[in-house]
Amino acid sequence: MSFPERVRIVEVGPRDGLQNEPIQVPVATRVALIEALAAAGLTRIEAGSFVSPKWVPQMAGTEEVLASLRRVPGVDYPVLVPNLQGLDRALAAGVTEIAVFGAASEAFSRRNINCSIAESLDRFAPVVERALAAGMRVRGYVSCVLGCPYEGTVAPAAVAGVAARLAAMGCYEISLGDTIGVGTPLQARHLVERVAQDVPVARLALHFHDTYGQALANTLACLETGVAVIDAAVAGLGGCPYAKGAAGNLATEDLVYMLHGMGIATGVDLDRLCAAGDMIAATLGRPSGSRVAKARQGLRP
Amino acid sequence: MSFPERVRIVEVGPRDGLQNEPIQVPVATRVALIEALAAAGLTRIEAGSFVSPKWVPQMAGTEEVLASLRRVPGVDYPVLVPNLQGLDRALAAGVTEIAVFGAASEAFSRRNINCSIAESLDRFAPVVERALAAGMRVRGYVSCVLGCPYEGTVAPAAVAGVAARLAAMGCYEISLGDTIGVGTPLQARHLVERVAQDVPVARLALHFHDTYGQALANTLACLETGVAVIDAAVAGLGGCPYAKGAAGNLATEDLVYMLHGMGIATGVDLDRLCAAGDMIAATLGRPSGSRVAKARQGLRP
Repeated sequence: MSFPERVRIVEVGPRDGLQNEPIQVPVATRVALIEALAAAGLTRIEAGSFVSPKWVPQMAGTEEVLASLRRVPGVDYPVLVPNLQGLDRALAAGVTEIAVFGAASEAFSRRNINCSIAESLDRFAPVVERALAAGMRVRGYVSCVLGCPYEGTVAPAAVAGVAARLAAMGCYEISLGDTIGVGTPLQARHLVERVAQDVPVARLALHFHDTYGQALANTLACLETGVAVIDAAVAGLGGCPYAKGAAGNLATEDLVYMLHGMGIATGVDLDRLCAAGDMIAATLGRPSGSRVAKARQGLRP
Repeated sequence: MSFPERVRIVEVGPRDGLQNEPIQVPVATRVALIEALAAAGLTRIEAGSFVSPKWVPQMAGTEEVLASLRRVPGVDYPVLVPNLQGLDRALAAGVTEIAVFGAASEAFSRRNINCSIAESLDRFAPVVERALAAGMRVRGYVSCVLGCPYEGTVAPAAVAGVAARLAAMGCYEISLGDTIGVGTPLQARHLVERVAQDVPVARLALHFHDTYGQALANTLACLETGVAVIDAAVAGLGGCPYAKGAAGNLATEDLVYMLHGMGIATGVDLDRLCAAGDMIAATLGRPSGSRVAKARQGLRP
């Protein structure tokens, strides 16, 4: 077995996490969360989204979040941008990194953003071009890489095709997302190996949801392929443990615990990370989705 | 990567799971659970314990459980036995397989069973001898194999020593238990590799608790060593998700989901398994500790 010496974690809790929580978290709390995550040593923290608040009310106020955030040198605060209007908002807010997103499933693309995969990529091209011209970095997401709620199976070649298009547009990194959390370790690993035929593995990141409890095992299986960038959300944000059927993103705490236990550096302070996660779980009025966080709460007197 | 074609699951929910739940489950429900697990295709189901009910009240009534159980041909119903009195009860109840348990940590052994590791093994020797003479099969557990709540680190050589003693006594299989769930994948794998120097890997089983969310990833890391027997508990029994710090055994549902997704056969019907888990979770008045079970509940109309 061969693992990377260091893994870079992309913390998606304040965006992908909170946008899937039933409660709208106030701007001040979102700022406090992002600052706590930076203080814990995370160096890439998704700060919000310039999707219409009509569709994603949880991300309303992203401008205010960015305006009041005390930025730490060396930390990136990427923001999700769906189109040119979103890019204008990002430029006005002084954002230096954006993320765009495509689906690997035609049915999901049509239901989620109301156009085909090819049309969505055509729409992103000018967004990416303008962002790069403005000196921004651009990250690409591919969703439904291990399964689609409407189509079921998704072909690895289809994922590779979308990833390659995003890379060709100029995305410096492509994050492969198992949006519905159905994948298992060998599927995940085979997917990465297939996509790496078209996009260098050094430009790939992985994004697992823990819906079926597979997120950490999938991560482990893929680390041996050379991928060294993993998305995760503090407190497993993105699904309330009380709600039926809902489990969120891979919990950053559980990922850090595993990586440190394997001698893989992350630069993250687990104590501070747990404190940040406990804070946001308390705000949401629910237990943390991280088992490490819960275990450490139990150890306290 | 090389994985076994088939994994045998040892279902420990009705014993290791329920004995660590705060609620005492009635005999009739325990019988119904064991029968539902057998109907789901599990072929080795821990049915109870002949430890004193003074110490483990949850396992009181194990005789009644065994007496009213409709036994399925080909299914084993092992029972935990701590000493000769326990063996007498097992013999009287018509038990055909027992399990004995030693710790790999001196401090844990002294606190848990009030004697040194060597003394505990000396006590087990006549139990195992008499059980074998009576035609029983005997399984050995080693606890604290990846960490001790009192000592911290546990040396793999110490685990190997206890495992080898139990194997030499005549235990057909040795289950290595991460009792406090602190281990991570490479530690787990290195441990198995070390123990396999003294006990053939075909006689080893693994027993992970999900306290720190590592159980499934640890299992995955160890399957490549050739281990093909995994202990798990339906609904992740053994710790209430509401309680601080408590996470139970690796959930059988999540294990089966991973294995089937990897093309590894288990003989278990996941639908029936989830139904058994949902039933016992409802009895305990708490959500299932299995993410697969929760995801499938969410899918139902």
